[in-house]
Amino acid sequence: MKSATDPVENLAQLIACPSVTPAEAGALTALESMLAPLGFSVERPVFSEEGTPDVENLYARRSGNGPHLMFAGHTDVVPVGDEAAWKFPPFSAAIHNGQMYGRGAVDMKGGVACFTAAVARHITKHGSLKGSISFLITGDEEGPSINGTGKLLEWAKAKGESWDAAIVGEPTNPDKLGDMIKIGRRGSLSGTITVNGVQGHAAYPHLADNPVRGLVTLLDSLLYPALDKGTKDFQATNLEVTTMDVGNPAVNVIPAKATATFNIRYNDSWTDETLMAEIHNRLDRAAGRRKLRPGRKTPVNYELTWRDRPSHVFLTHDDKLVGTLTKSVEAVIGRRPQLSTSGGTSDARFIKDYCPVVEFGLVGKTMHMVDERVDIADLETLTQIYERFIEDFLA
Amino acid sequence: MKSATDPVENLAQLIACPSVTPAEAGALTALESMLAPLGFSVERPVFSEEGTPDVENLYARRSGNGPHLMFAGHTDVVPVGDEAAWKFPPFSAAIHNGQMYGRGAVDMKGGVACFTAAVARHITKHGSLKGSISFLITGDEEGPSINGTGKLLEWAKAKGESWDAAIVGEPTNPDKLGDMIKIGRRGSLSGTITVNGVQGHAAYPHLADNPVRGLVTLLDSLLYPALDKGTKDFQATNLEVTTMDVGNPAVNVIPAKATATFNIRYNDSWTDETLMAEIHNRLDRAAGRRKLRPGRKTPVNYELTWRDRPSHVFLTHDDKLVGTLTKSVEAVIGRRPQLSTSGGTSDARFIKDYCPVVEFGLVGKTMHMVDERVDIADLETLTQIYERFIEDFLA
Ligand SMILES: [Zn+2]
Ligand SMILES: [Zn+2]
Repeated sequence: MKSATDPVENLAQLIACPSVTPAEAGALTALESMLAPLGFSVERPVFSEEGTPDVENLYARRSGNGPHLMFAGHTDVVPVGDEAAWKFPPFSAAIHNGQMYGRGAVDMKGGVACFTAAVARHITKHGSLKGSISFLITGDEEGPSINGTGKLLEWAKAKGESWDAAIVGEPTNPDKLGDMIKIGRRGSLSGTITVNGVQGHAAYPHLADNPVRGLVTLLDSLLYPALDKGTKDFQATNLEVTTMDVGNPAVNVIPAKATATFNIRYNDSWTDETLMAEIHNRLDRAAGRRKLRPGRKTPVNYELTWRDRPSHVFLTHDDKLVGTLTKSVEAVIGRRPQLSTSGGTSDARFIKDYCPVVEFGLVGKTMHMVDERVDIADLETLTQIYERFIEDFLA
Repeated sequence: MKSATDPVENLAQLIACPSVTPAEAGALTALESMLAPLGFSVERPVFSEEGTPDVENLYARRSGNGPHLMFAGHTDVVPVGDEAAWKFPPFSAAIHNGQMYGRGAVDMKGGVACFTAAVARHITKHGSLKGSISFLITGDEEGPSINGTGKLLEWAKAKGESWDAAIVGEPTNPDKLGDMIKIGRRGSLSGTITVNGVQGHAAYPHLADNPVRGLVTLLDSLLYPALDKGTKDFQATNLEVTTMDVGNPAVNVIPAKATATFNIRYNDSWTDETLMAEIHNRLDRAAGRRKLRPGRKTPVNYELTWRDRPSHVFLTHDDKLVGTLTKSVEAVIGRRPQLSTSGGTSDARFIKDYCPVVEFGLVGKTMHMVDERVDIADLETLTQIYERFIEDFLA
């Protein structure tokens, strides 16, 4: 049987599966057929939760004497959007001008294809592994992320698995391969503020209490001053008000209720708890719960509801993991990658509770877009970086 | 033929007509049948405008040698709301515990009934009028006010009519009959602000421009500091943000657009023009069109659209009109009424361009509410005040 040493072939097989979350669509089966011949024992647990679709995941391990390295990622992809706008059909893996087109090309079937090829080359070369390698691959990263990496880690831990380090194959490079390793991610926290006022006629404001007035004051207190200026490793914490709504069509009516939702991306100067306390503190002060604002008879009557599960901030301090990966990139590319904590959340936020974790993969420029595509040359280069990293990390 | 000297009977006839705007429903016919026997020539012009329902109005005049006094008002009423919640059917004019119930009882079929009774008594007593009296009655005061008083005044002026003074019979008394004469009204001006930003992911705010952030800053600049502290005759100008909307359901997405609508009730320290200029000035400054706010690279990209036709502020300086009415109230009730400019806009805003105008009528407490009702005793008292006023004003 042919070994999966060519990342281009691996990726073409994966792109051919239309695995838009939560569909498996053959993607995990394709990966299993690459890993099983390499000596990996493969399991495909399905996780369920009320109100969300069932999702299939994959855990594959080949054991050796030495450290245990996890490669984590996903084979699910975001929808194709306007299919007619694609230059080539989004699941055709067409190659044109040195690039392979397809949904998931960089996010992140490409990363999976390269790591698989790197492992195949390592085993072909050495005939065995110095340590253990496992693939922790979910089908629920682009969706609600409920039946995915979090549960897969718990499930593996319950079976007795533990890891020394993990690398997530997300597309971390903004522009050129080798630009950037992610060594941490900001946390994410969202809340909805509801201000209850008293409805009335715009000509008789003293008989009413306009909730918009209160909400503007509360939001201003969240936006200014900035929450911090950033830390050694992280950008400044940022708060965005993502929506605010009243829905009152009558220009002479003071409405009864106004709501707004905000999302905060926060750095390592906060924990969930300290940040929530700061938000409550700003809102209470702005609402006049401690001291009334001139012109108000009562504090702004608001409620704050925290939304979803917060994503915790994390930062990898592991010298071996970060150092080895940095040197692997330098050895292959000849440039030193930037160590960054920018960008959105990723499944690394789950992994960091089990072992040190970094993220490094392809160039993200076209991710989630029409005509998502990857340089064929990058697939070979990333495979070489991963191979070097496996060699050095397991040594 | 029986003369319309009893305001209670007049009002019962008017309430029986379900003249919810824009329906005439017999209300103007009932009024015509009271006025015609008193020697009034009655006309019922219908006005139309694209996009609004046709509305019937009434203009009645009886001439004499002396000043020309206009009584202005409306026979249309607001909808009954939850009819089942009424103690008595809303068009039954039921009398219970000294009160007559019905939609329009105080706003303002009651005022029309009393002024008609006062004129009838005056003519019964003197056999003639010392001056001229006209009724300028619209069926479009509670609706869009487009095919009503404004057009009726133009129509009458085109026929050669002119007036020395006008009294509007709206319910001006907040609590007890004789409390308050309105000698002016604030103006009203509304606008909608649209802020155009750049959509993006909440984790990459530097690639986006959140319009909510800009809108909060703009609204705060309109709300604080207050526009003025009030004038000798008027309350402080007040601005209410009546709605603001984004409609973005995705908490990790920075929206592209945010809008807000505001309504200003303004006093005689402003004109439309100076107030509009002040609003533009505050918005431009807050948007950073002159000097950027820290953290912004470009000014907030906003548009301001003025809505509807503004209602101009007005104040009656006519000593004869205000003085005569004040003395009439004092003579009948024994208390001096307050001269006020508070509350919403009224059709007096149209009349003030033709002659001095004041407003005085019943007690407004139950207007627009379920169980709208009037004290039977108030109908008699208001009729006496109007009769005294006619006597003295025409003298
Ligand atoms: Zn991804
Ligand atoms: Zn009215």
